[in-house]
Amino acid sequence: MLVSPKGKRYFRILDPDEILNTNDGQLQMQKVMENGFGSRLATHLGKTYTVLKPTLYDLIKSVKRRTQIIYPKDIGYIIIKLGIGPGSRVVESGSGSGALTTALAWFVGDRGKVYSFERREEFANLCRANLERNGLASRVEIINRDIDLGFIQKEVDALFLDVRTPWDYLEHIPEALLPGGPVGFLLPTVNQVSMLLEALEEGPFSSVEVLEILVRRYKPVPERLRPEDRMVAHTGYLIFARLSPKSVEIPLEDDGVHEGDDSEPF
Amino acid sequence: MLVSPKGKRYFRILDPDEILNTNDGQLQMQKVMENGFGSRLATHLGKTYTVLKPTLYDLIKSVKRRTQIIYPKDIGYIIIKLGIGPGSRVVESGSGSGALTTALAWFVGDRGKVYSFERREEFANLCRANLERNGLASRVEIINRDIDLGFIQKEVDALFLDVRTPWDYLEHIPEALLPGGPVGFLLPTVNQVSMLLEALEEGPFSSVEVLEILVRRYKPVPERLRPEDRMVAHTGYLIFARLSPKSVEIPLEDDGVHEGDDSEPF
Amino acid sequence: MLVSPKGKRYFRILDPDEILNTNDGQLQMQKVMENGFGSRLATHLGKTYTVLKPTLYDLIKSVKRRTQIIYPKDIGYIIIKLGIGPGSRVVESGSGSGALTTALAWFVGDRGKVYSFERREEFANLCRANLERNGLASRVEIINRDIDLGFIQKEVDALFLDVRTPWDYLEHIPEALLPGGPVGFLLPTVNQVSMLLEALEEGPFSSVEVLEILVRRYKPVPERLRPEDRMVAHTGYLIFARLSPKSVEIPLEDDGVHEGDDSEPF
Amino acid sequence: MLVSPKGKRYFRILDPDEILNTNDGQLQMQKVMENGFGSRLATHLGKTYTVLKPTLYDLIKSVKRRTQIIYPKDIGYIIIKLGIGPGSRVVESGSGSGALTTALAWFVGDRGKVYSFERREEFANLCRANLERNGLASRVEIINRDIDLGFIQKEVDALFLDVRTPWDYLEHIPEALLPGGPVGFLLPTVNQVSMLLEALEEGPFSSVEVLEILVRRYKPVPERLRPEDRMVAHTGYLIFARLSPKSVEIPLEDDGVHEGDDSEPF
Repeated sequence: MLVSPKGKRYFRILDPDEILNTNDGQLQMQKVMENGFGSRLATHLGKTYTVLKPTLYDLIKSVKRRTQIIYPKDIGYIIIKLGIGPGSRVVESGSGSGALTTALAWFVGDRGKVYSFERREEFANLCRANLERNGLASRVEIINRDIDLGFIQKEVDALFLDVRTPWDYLEHIPEALLPGGPVGFLLPTVNQVSMLLEALEEGPFSSVEVLEILVRRYKPVPERLRPEDRMVAHTGYLIFARLSPKSVEIPLEDDGVHEGDDSEPF
Repeated sequence: MLVSPKGKRYFRILDPDEILNTNDGQLQMQKVMENGFGSRLATHLGKTYTVLKPTLYDLIKSVKRRTQIIYPKDIGYIIIKLGIGPGSRVVESGSGSGALTTALAWFVGDRGKVYSFERREEFANLCRANLERNGLASRVEIINRDIDLGFIQKEVDALFLDVRTPWDYLEHIPEALLPGGPVGFLLPTVNQVSMLLEALEEGPFSSVEVLEILVRRYKPVPERLRPEDRMVAHTGYLIFARLSPKSVEIPLEDDGVHEGDDSEPF
Repeated sequence: MLVSPKGKRYFRILDPDEILNTNDGQLQMQKVMENGFGSRLATHLGKTYTVLKPTLYDLIKSVKRRTQIIYPKDIGYIIIKLGIGPGSRVVESGSGSGALTTALAWFVGDRGKVYSFERREEFANLCRANLERNGLASRVEIINRDIDLGFIQKEVDALFLDVRTPWDYLEHIPEALLPGGPVGFLLPTVNQVSMLLEALEEGPFSSVEVLEILVRRYKPVPERLRPEDRMVAHTGYLIFARLSPKSVEIPLEDDGVHEGDDSEPF
Repeated sequence: MLVSPKGKRYFRILDPDEILNTNDGQLQMQKVMENGFGSRLATHLGKTYTVLKPTLYDLIKSVKRRTQIIYPKDIGYIIIKLGIGPGSRVVESGSGSGALTTALAWFVGDRGKVYSFERREEFANLCRANLERNGLASRVEIINRDIDLGFIQKEVDALFLDVRTPWDYLEHIPEALLPGGPVGFLLPTVNQVSMLLEALEEGPFSSVEVLEILVRRYKPVPERLRPEDRMVAHTGYLIFARLSPKSVEIPLEDDGVHEGDDSEPF
């Protein structure tokens, strides 16, 4: 990641032969390679660019979008609830602009795989372009197909649906997901949450949870510390469940921790 | 992970010779291995246990704790902001009970490394025990030492401090962290946040952010959907910054997205 | 209001002949009258009681309850949205334990009137007892009747419904409420809110708003200031509307202030 | 209150001789008086205006402002905590644009009184103009004076300070406020809250509370109910205390209700 004096960010997979054309002049990628992360290099017009190793947050923020994306606050929680990590095989739908796809690809590593279903060719292409730009394309298979035909994969570790009517596709989950595996959903309205909960109750799912993640930011001024005046109040509701093994309910750990009356804020 | 009929959870790294003693009788791990994830097995007393592949959420929840731990809602965001992923090398202090350590170890994979500093031997041992229990110990080096002597590692990808007076240790960060690398902090009181911000302003740090993550849970009843009556209102404030490369400010992308007046909820 | 050394509170309308029997001995109300608010008086057993002028908050907190009550955070906003003040005539249903009734009676003063409908005799009596205890009974007419027969009053200034199926009673509002007058509702679930909104759309109502009020408390320790660990996350959703004058929509002030994208937090 | 077809609002105290000049032509107030609240009247240019009885919310929203004002969400809670009602005598400082002043004047009625201190003549005049416009001026005495000289009134029922350094004026409160009476403060930053708490600890104050009020609004669409995308995240922290009678602590009711671990959300 190269950051301009004004904060504009350029993402590149290192190719020593490339010459980067910036708003402030040219920069040889050969020099970037030699100087490494944290170095500060001058363009041929004498403007100083900073070379940084991008974090996943940087990558998600750089995703070119033509759809509503899933944001880091929600992605972080999704990743942990779905148990995504190095080596995971995960199905998601739809790809959209590829923000969650980027995160899934980041975490599954070179030995994992992300299967990303997207009905609309336009978005499948957009997602692919974003992944190529951030160097994670090899970990993702983008499938330009409607999921009403079901998923192709078997025994994936986790599954995430960011579609308008997820209840229409629940029937296809058992054939794709490892028995007992975690599944997640994102929905913007309470009416959709209600409909999904009703469908999940018909099984074979258990351990259903509904929640929202809110981020409250502060102005980082030590002597006048206060929350920002405005905040994002809603992106979507997150719903999680576990596929029941052989249609049997998974007993919840009887610790009441989701009830809000306990000492542990899980 | 083996789940009892009452929801009690047992975590084991698969050893076919082991015989698990549960509250409901014995279970041969050989049988667990043969039947795989999602299977349901009877103990010698005829009680049915469910075999599940644990998610990271499950592992964090199973951490035996004698300290305040960092919770999934905060961990998810930390991981993304710090750019932790397969292959990352990361320093944290203190280890505490090892909840964040577990998550860091989960994400860095077999080729990454977590260096976890803990001053108190009691907690270093507790963290080690938790990591051995969840099978991630090989990815972590627990260092039973005070960080006022500095960190030993060089050019790690990220650094996280969950200590009472982080401002006392800022001077040691430049020698341990990759220039331009991300650093994070967790602090419970606003007074501490204020003191840390003051210290960060003296450099060499930039892109400072302060925020809180809130989780609001709903009762998952489709026909009577409503938030739970109570919620966790506070675990701690998260503070993020970037180590400046060569003491120069990293320009923020001038998109105003942190100001709360923009259309993108980053 | 008399406060015991342990914080127990006694509410009395001043009667100089009364002798108050407390857990700590007897107290002559004659002495209370002579010494006035802020005085500290000894019982015949030598325990010191403090005489305070109760705030409305104190009165609401002292309501004996056998139902869910409406809390100060919601009451404050309701009063302002409904325009309750000295001289107001207001209808509410149901009375419940009388927490909102107490507040309405407090604000309408001696020249206003609260008409409180309650179907269940048990709660009508409880509400009456609470109002007699806090000295506001003369401002309230408790009507032990189901509102499916309609309201009796005409041209009241405001109307508030805290009932399970408010949509069943909307038809009776126009004959009771001043044209253009404000009406409010409290509902615990999103499903109910959705049903009410649907009914309100059929008219004759306009300027419909839905919102929640959240209170976040802090531990008042100057050198370790932080939010309390837990908070009340939900009491209910507040819905407000205005009765349309002659079935015509009242134009909203076109300032976008409810849209969340403006600089004024109304 | 007259509302134009486009939602513009005109506030007038009824004078049958007045002719209101609107953007849409003239309107005779004589006709407004004859037709009453809820009527719809045509201007001489044939545009229809709606006559509404304004709520306090309407009045606060109509305040012309050149300062940050206190908003209804905060005002509602302040009124209840301070015990303001018909007949109350209350001191506030500073007047600012007069939003809280309007609310205090609304609730104290004709037999109560608001004493509003404002150091800057410009704001004293603005506040006065706003009160004259909304018809509440007779209930308010605006005092264009700095409160470092103390308050003039004795034994008022409540006191509210919305000033930058409230700790500088605590010493003057005992001579103005009824012993045991409630006092409130609004402060934007945590640093100020911390300083005020420290000063309050030195007495003679007790029952100190710190809190924030948050309003979360929903888009009122029955079939797609969801929170608005953005919300106001901060106006200020509210701090409440009680003046100790004769410098003795008022025992808190030992019900733990402010601790967040109880079943009552006060």
